[in-house]
Amino acid sequence: MTQIAICPGSFDPITLGHLDIIERSTYIYDKVVVGIADNPSKAALFSLDERVEMAKEAVAGLGNVTIESFEGLLTVFARANGARAIVKGLRAISDFEHEFQMAHLNKKLDNTLETVFMMASPEYMFLSSSAVKEIAGFGGDISGLVAETTQARLRRKFAR
Amino acid sequence: MTQIAICPGSFDPITLGHLDIIERSTYIYDKVVVGIADNPSKAALFSLDERVEMAKEAVAGLGNVTIESFEGLLTVFARANGARAIVKGLRAISDFEHEFQMAHLNKKLDNTLETVFMMASPEYMFLSSSAVKEIAGFGGDISGLVAETTQARLRRKFAR
Amino acid sequence: MTQIAICPGSFDPITLGHLDIIERSTYIYDKVVVGIADNPSKAALFSLDERVEMAKEAVAGLGNVTIESFEGLLTVFARANGARAIVKGLRAISDFEHEFQMAHLNKKLDNTLETVFMMASPEYMFLSSSAVKEIAGFGGDISGLVAETTQARLRRKFAR
Amino acid sequence: MTQIAICPGSFDPITLGHLDIIERSTYIYDKVVVGIADNPSKAALFSLDERVEMAKEAVAGLGNVTIESFEGLLTVFARANGARAIVKGLRAISDFEHEFQMAHLNKKLDNTLETVFMMASPEYMFLSSSAVKEIAGFGGDISGLVAETTQARLRRKFAR
Amino acid sequence: MTQIAICPGSFDPITLGHLDIIERSTYIYDKVVVGIADNPSKAALFSLDERVEMAKEAVAGLGNVTIESFEGLLTVFARANGARAIVKGLRAISDFEHEFQMAHLNKKLDNTLETVFMMASPEYMFLSSSAVKEIAGFGGDISGLVAETTQARLRRKFAR
Amino acid sequence: MTQIAICPGSFDPITLGHLDIIERSTYIYDKVVVGIADNPSKAALFSLDERVEMAKEAVAGLGNVTIESFEGLLTVFARANGARAIVKGLRAISDFEHEFQMAHLNKKLDNTLETVFMMASPEYMFLSSSAVKEIAGFGGDISGLVAETTQARLRRKFAR
Repeated sequence: MTQIAICPGSFDPITLGHLDIIERSTYIYDKVVVGIADNPSKAALFSLDERVEMAKEAVAGLGNVTIESFEGLLTVFARANGARAIVKGLRAISDFEHEFQMAHLNKKLDNTLETVFMMASPEYMFLSSSAVKEIAGFGGDISGLVAETTQARLRRKFAR
Repeated sequence: MTQIAICPGSFDPITLGHLDIIERSTYIYDKVVVGIADNPSKAALFSLDERVEMAKEAVAGLGNVTIESFEGLLTVFARANGARAIVKGLRAISDFEHEFQMAHLNKKLDNTLETVFMMASPEYMFLSSSAVKEIAGFGGDISGLVAETTQARLRRKFAR
Repeated sequence: MTQIAICPGSFDPITLGHLDIIERSTYIYDKVVVGIADNPSKAALFSLDERVEMAKEAVAGLGNVTIESFEGLLTVFARANGARAIVKGLRAISDFEHEFQMAHLNKKLDNTLETVFMMASPEYMFLSSSAVKEIAGFGGDISGLVAETTQARLRRKFAR
Repeated sequence: MTQIAICPGSFDPITLGHLDIIERSTYIYDKVVVGIADNPSKAALFSLDERVEMAKEAVAGLGNVTIESFEGLLTVFARANGARAIVKGLRAISDFEHEFQMAHLNKKLDNTLETVFMMASPEYMFLSSSAVKEIAGFGGDISGLVAETTQARLRRKFAR
Repeated sequence: MTQIAICPGSFDPITLGHLDIIERSTYIYDKVVVGIADNPSKAALFSLDERVEMAKEAVAGLGNVTIESFEGLLTVFARANGARAIVKGLRAISDFEHEFQMAHLNKKLDNTLETVFMMASPEYMFLSSSAVKEIAGFGGDISGLVAETTQARLRRKFAR
Repeated sequence: MTQIAICPGSFDPITLGHLDIIERSTYIYDKVVVGIADNPSKAALFSLDERVEMAKEAVAGLGNVTIESFEGLLTVFARANGARAIVKGLRAISDFEHEFQMAHLNKKLDNTLETVFMMASPEYMFLSSSAVKEIAGFGGDISGLVAETTQARLRRKFAR
């Protein structure tokens, strides 16, 4: 069977930590769909279109990865893509708790879907989109945190 | 590609929580190998042979699952079986921490191997082999905790 | 002595997880007062009146339970009701930490009051009012998460 | 109804942290039974008889508290005493996890029993029987950690 | 060498828990600089000037402590003060996780800076600026939580 | 004042994670004393003499570091060395909890001593002496986990 996995998130912006999980997912799934959530109730720095573009730029070198946006329930999006697995990275205890609750809720909404977790690589355990935005907002160095194409977009965003 | 996953552990004895993770693994992997560790430095209630037999009885109804024992490093066993993924269930924070360390160490030992985690189903979050042994040792009711075939073996073990 | 316990919260809306803790409280306390906090600084989906009505509907079948709203300090409300115990459900580590801090602060404010905790039942460990609202907002199925009367109110709220 | 609570443990030896939970339990239960577990598989510094004697000395000033030993399942002991509540103190996350598992297992073994938790008082959050034994074994000062009568017994034990 | 440590935070307002960490820092560092962050994106009850004044009043009796405000990256502020250590108090697991991420990010931004942590004293483990504000806002007793000079300012703030 | 810090532990054997904390300590303390505990109740793979020798070999390139062994209470050893700070590395939540308890107990035994914590570097967060021993015992590759001199000793130990 062709195994399709969904990597969901806000990706505001996509970080090297996200890319690490996406790349590692391609080794154990035939196809990986990065699902960028359009959640109007959550204020984002980048528009949905910008987030999709940044993700496309960042995964350019990876095969079997597609970038898509979605709104509404993740389980509906996953099923529409023929996926049976949702892949999430875990960095810390608080991730664990939140993801544990989401995994069980999603299982309740669609019990044919399985959420699987990968541990963040040690060098990315401290990394989050919000930390990247805070550092960039103060003019700090964000190399090594996001892809070069994303760095350029962050600099432009905060230069305005 | 044929995706093979390893479900490793001591399985002393195999519980319904283990079986839940094994069964869910069969939905997203083509083949699941349950690897029962022969770790002489860890005292077990059941012999390695008994643990293998109990596991075979318990997974009798599941397709694409094989039971094997191994000694030495898990990464060597996984590679020998052509697996690219190790599957572990997470029940709690302490599981998370220990498994996080094991996953990184195993990645260091063999970086072609990925450890993926599934959340224990809510009804099995409180369940461990050691709890089962303690209850059985005091003559308590272990139905709903281990398979019927395993219940019988536990009763015989403690009746001696 | 007649033991009175307070079950405090926002109950926006009351979930089956809340009801489980309330019902279990009635087995070990003579009287249970559900205290719905009127906290103007916390945005709620439902008005205080709606939250009180939903809670009343949901506990209709339980004896020795009353629903009341309060504003200000919980300790003052508890003492005004003659309660010596505050009952809280614990679902996860983050609950634990927050509740630990609240329990010590409340003890400092009134040392005749004791906060006692019960573990959420496994099937409700993933459940929160905010998750219910998010699912309902996306049109997902909320049966098994809140009482039927509450389901109807949520559907009406999001249909507007 | 007369509410009876069980405070179970090894009490090897009883600490001021245990006594704090026991005393606070007497404020919200009519009768508190301290249950000292006779668990032959767990090596103890003090014999069961010594642990019972130390506990009796330490609770001498508290009304409505009795000290009893038990072997086997806690749920059987609790029911034999007519208790509907087991009271446990929580000091830390690792306590939380272990106690969470035990509470669910005990509920499975006897669903008429409820486990309730109290947060350890701040000054006792760092305190455990094993820490007391380690300090006493090195000749350190254990005042403020255990009752005076217990201090004397620890000094005699390590003087031998 | 003269060891300078930075104690950073919002201090909205400074609590007895903050003061405890600051005082303990003076015992192992030659000079302690309390850095009050001017973070426009974070709504504060007190203005930056008020927070600086409150902190100055509260540390009046401590030698080798200066109060300064800063905006922008903490690492830049620390280096400008000749500090090689940032001191943070840890109260709880969630502190630990957040501080762990900040420490690694700050190390990445300036690897000559080290973040060191001290455990909050038990009597202040439940204490936070936001809890103080909530209690004061409801007219509760805040003695024992903040310095007397700070109590007066809180009362004036909420009397308006 | 000359600031002396103690880095205590079993060091059975010393790992690159320990060395990282020791080296970082030399940047913010004038002198660092590595204290190797002689705890007869804790079974060690290496004798106390071997652990001291391995540590001396491993810190050979670091200035201002001395290796000493001690038995009994850490607080007594620290005071005898004129230290006012104990430095510990934190890798994970379980470290945090245990170290939190030890820090408070040590403060109670000697309130002139302060325990300060540093976060383990990301690449060593998964590393422990016991993991090293387990991998070495199975013949796995331990380069990148311990110093080269330590690797040789581990190989000899397990070759016997």
